[in-house]
Amino acid sequence: MSAMVIDDPAVKAEVEAVFALYEAALVGNDVATLERLFHDDPRTIRYGAAENLHGMEAIRAFRRARPPQGLARTLEGTVITTYGRDLAVAMTLFRRDAAPGRIGRQSQTWIRFPDGWKVVAAHVSVIDEPA
Amino acid sequence: MSAMVIDDPAVKAEVEAVFALYEAALVGNDVATLERLFHDDPRTIRYGAAENLHGMEAIRAFRRARPPQGLARTLEGTVITTYGRDLAVAMTLFRRDAAPGRIGRQSQTWIRFPDGWKVVAAHVSVIDEPA
Repeated sequence: MSAMVIDDPAVKAEVEAVFALYEAALVGNDVATLERLFHDDPRTIRYGAAENLHGMEAIRAFRRARPPQGLARTLEGTVITTYGRDLAVAMTLFRRDAAPGRIGRQSQTWIRFPDGWKVVAAHVSVIDEPA
Repeated sequence: MSAMVIDDPAVKAEVEAVFALYEAALVGNDVATLERLFHDDPRTIRYGAAENLHGMEAIRAFRRARPPQGLARTLEGTVITTYGRDLAVAMTLFRRDAAPGRIGRQSQTWIRFPDGWKVVAAHVSVIDEPA
């Protein structure tokens, strides 16, 4: 992979757009969009704030059962990095008004498939604000 | 990326090998190997169990200061998935004897660079065992 370009502007713009779409769907609890932006495959994994979801079936079941309240959040320290044309990592911190002193972390690995960019792995966790 | 093969056996074997190398280095606190297996770049990010490390410089400083005790752990539910020849996601749960009732989650995005496979993003968190 000698020709891999990191942070090609055109690729990065594409991923920033799907990342923003995902974020809007998350806080709006637009489950159809959230599902469309994950790779529909048993190998897709999402470690959530309090659950470990292996495979898209488990991820769908969780999202469809999730209460739509309290999802609003503010992002900070977001870093999206693209590697080549078809891979990106999106890392962000987040805060919720209801959880002062706590900071969330969300990491996603995005891959470009024939039908668009999809998350193949995600991990969300919330910790006490580091000193 | 129409020709992307998921879980090509040869690629998967390579990533399984570096993943095992990383795990041995982690529990053995072999900091040089841990550093070698991360992409040495300011864009590399590691969200740790209690800290958010942006860039290889911060990751190195954290590792070099870390107490070498209590790192032993048992992995379970490990899933390594490769996408094409140059990308892999490694997801695993882990437990430590000192933390009964808690379960760790580690996610890593690995990329093949000219000098070998490297982690470009990692996220570690520990939660209460889901019901």
